[in-house]
Amino acid sequence: MTEKTFRSNIQIAVEKVRVENPLAPSITNTVTQDFVANAQLAIGGSAAMVYLPDEGEAIANFARAVYINLGTMFPFYAETIPRTLRALKNKNTPFVLDPVAIGIGTLRTELLTQMKNFKPTIIRGNPSEIIALAKLWDLNDHEGGKVRGVDSTENVDEAAYSAIRLAKFTGGAVAVSGAKDLITDGEFAIYSSGGSPLFTKITGSGCALGGVMAVYLTVASPIIAAFTGAAIFNRAGSLAAEKSSTPASFKVAFLDELYKVSASDVASSEFQVFPC
Amino acid sequence: MTEKTFRSNIQIAVEKVRVENPLAPSITNTVTQDFVANAQLAIGGSAAMVYLPDEGEAIANFARAVYINLGTMFPFYAETIPRTLRALKNKNTPFVLDPVAIGIGTLRTELLTQMKNFKPTIIRGNPSEIIALAKLWDLNDHEGGKVRGVDSTENVDEAAYSAIRLAKFTGGAVAVSGAKDLITDGEFAIYSSGGSPLFTKITGSGCALGGVMAVYLTVASPIIAAFTGAAIFNRAGSLAAEKSSTPASFKVAFLDELYKVSASDVASSEFQVFPC
Amino acid sequence: MTEKTFRSNIQIAVEKVRVENPLAPSITNTVTQDFVANAQLAIGGSAAMVYLPDEGEAIANFARAVYINLGTMFPFYAETIPRTLRALKNKNTPFVLDPVAIGIGTLRTELLTQMKNFKPTIIRGNPSEIIALAKLWDLNDHEGGKVRGVDSTENVDEAAYSAIRLAKFTGGAVAVSGAKDLITDGEFAIYSSGGSPLFTKITGSGCALGGVMAVYLTVASPIIAAFTGAAIFNRAGSLAAEKSSTPASFKVAFLDELYKVSASDVASSEFQVFPC
Repeated sequence: MTEKTFRSNIQIAVEKVRVENPLAPSITNTVTQDFVANAQLAIGGSAAMVYLPDEGEAIANFARAVYINLGTMFPFYAETIPRTLRALKNKNTPFVLDPVAIGIGTLRTELLTQMKNFKPTIIRGNPSEIIALAKLWDLNDHEGGKVRGVDSTENVDEAAYSAIRLAKFTGGAVAVSGAKDLITDGEFAIYSSGGSPLFTKITGSGCALGGVMAVYLTVASPIIAAFTGAAIFNRAGSLAAEKSSTPASFKVAFLDELYKVSASDVASSEFQVFPC
Repeated sequence: MTEKTFRSNIQIAVEKVRVENPLAPSITNTVTQDFVANAQLAIGGSAAMVYLPDEGEAIANFARAVYINLGTMFPFYAETIPRTLRALKNKNTPFVLDPVAIGIGTLRTELLTQMKNFKPTIIRGNPSEIIALAKLWDLNDHEGGKVRGVDSTENVDEAAYSAIRLAKFTGGAVAVSGAKDLITDGEFAIYSSGGSPLFTKITGSGCALGGVMAVYLTVASPIIAAFTGAAIFNRAGSLAAEKSSTPASFKVAFLDELYKVSASDVASSEFQVFPC
Repeated sequence: MTEKTFRSNIQIAVEKVRVENPLAPSITNTVTQDFVANAQLAIGGSAAMVYLPDEGEAIANFARAVYINLGTMFPFYAETIPRTLRALKNKNTPFVLDPVAIGIGTLRTELLTQMKNFKPTIIRGNPSEIIALAKLWDLNDHEGGKVRGVDSTENVDEAAYSAIRLAKFTGGAVAVSGAKDLITDGEFAIYSSGGSPLFTKITGSGCALGGVMAVYLTVASPIIAAFTGAAIFNRAGSLAAEKSSTPASFKVAFLDELYKVSASDVASSEFQVFPC
């Protein structure tokens, strides 16, 4: 894909979502649902959150893409997640996995282990989560991947090897969020920059990004959807940081910019590509 | 009721809530609880959310009105909702039903079916939800009522027949939210206008409206409570839209306006009445 | 402790959190998680929320302080809370208890009764909750402590006796939130003033304060952590109230001020000390 085609595909993804208002339902943590849904709505998509096994199956059956984030676990997820994954596979519905808090609790670990067989279309996480997931799936013989709560103790470059291994394995895209974002399909590593350090001072910006990637996945390929999500976050984040230097007003400005930033502005955002 | 009496009753409802600070507890979805509670507080009411069976009974027993919104389901709602409904009936406590996401999952369908026997005092939904509920309760032989996630695919006028049938059946009020809102008691259809298209770009404005109607139900009749909720949302939404044209800052401005809009301003808001 | 030492300890607590970015994980209600997490992040801490029994044990084992708020109950808390409390005790991990909605439902009452044996390091509540908890633990032979939903029907002075009795029993600190805040270790009663009546018009300001106290508890003694939390809330609340007189924009301004208020400003905030 040439740079021109790549930029054109990003612009089309941003515009299509604004026109089609596609629904990307979620099974996602309770802490950040409001932010996930509002970010999905701000870019022109639509949101719905469910918990129960047959509801997970239902969204896998009718949606064009689904977002799964295991940040907060309920006991009945032991049934919800496997049934949802099977329905996603049967229907060939693409989905984004956000392995938040990987390493805490046995149920989360069991379910994230099972996910290996269902090859998430996009995996999005912070560096520590991506390293930890690659290790859980026996795709990383390196050290590292210490997860402390929901924060990362590694930086994006340290997670590049794991991200590429994961992408080669799934055949989809992997996005590592940090000061700069790495998006890879296993062939190319694309870095998106911009955004603001204030993203680390508001809860759920990573979750919101995962939800937004799921919306773009309804209209674009995994690598375009993942990159478009990262790019619109970085562009809207940069614009918001020009208006506010404190977290809560930054969050308001950021959601406002997600809504109004132009597709061409997103498509012309800065990135660098390296072969893997 | 003359127009003058109607407007006077609206003004009294707005003022009474600000003076009495009445509690309208909820069993409501996890996605929008923050917005529901903050909207209830902004108009002068008070909020509390519960999930467990005996807690549902408790709020039915001590509150003057309750809000039930089945947007996100937990397995134990199979016990919570029936026990709460029986307690509401025994105590004659009025309640608002918001049939969010009707049609997704068997438990939600079972519980919404049971609700028919408990005749919710106010039913609030988007057009698709109102049509779907009327069909679920065998009150609508028309076509329509396709629900897609939590969004509506129909407009308010298409739901008027279902709303009126529901209101005649319950003896309470039914509110259909859209570009204009329809509120009916089965005798009259009242249209409230105002608000902003930005309501569709923030998650939970419908849920927040349901919670606000429950607060007004602690001090007013079903039709007055439903209309006052719609009218204060439309008036505060119009005022907020003068200050902001982007979703997140609109939401902040809207909650601020809910808090400060005058009772007389709400009571003098535009509406049209038609006999059913 | 002299006043100078006391103020110096407050300043150190505020600064240490900003440098160390300590994690204070929570088992907390779903309604206000976003606000709790954003307040914890705004002061420089880090947040994570869990529900399951082995996750509760995990956070008790790895965190330097934990926040427990029983505002919304899940059935499986019957196992989560006791296992978490035992792990906290085994590891000697300090924790903050927020007895929100005490008196509603049997499970909440059972778990709050059990907590007596685990002596929470800090107890934070509104006056009614503090009085009700002292009665539940047979530490208060006075009348009072009527809880209505999540609001208080008593004022801070009426809860002083209960707060002191609780603090003498636990050997930790107790904080009573109101127009002025009372913080006591059973020897001294310290009053912190400032803030804004708008705190009562936004949901979760008490929960957010509990979460913030847990963050300070990772770096300070119970009385310093509790007072620092109250003082930064009062100072940031006063500054926010200068910028906004309506609830939603006040909340944004308040979180912004939590982030930017200087440590020396917090440490020089007004307080009064009385021997118990």
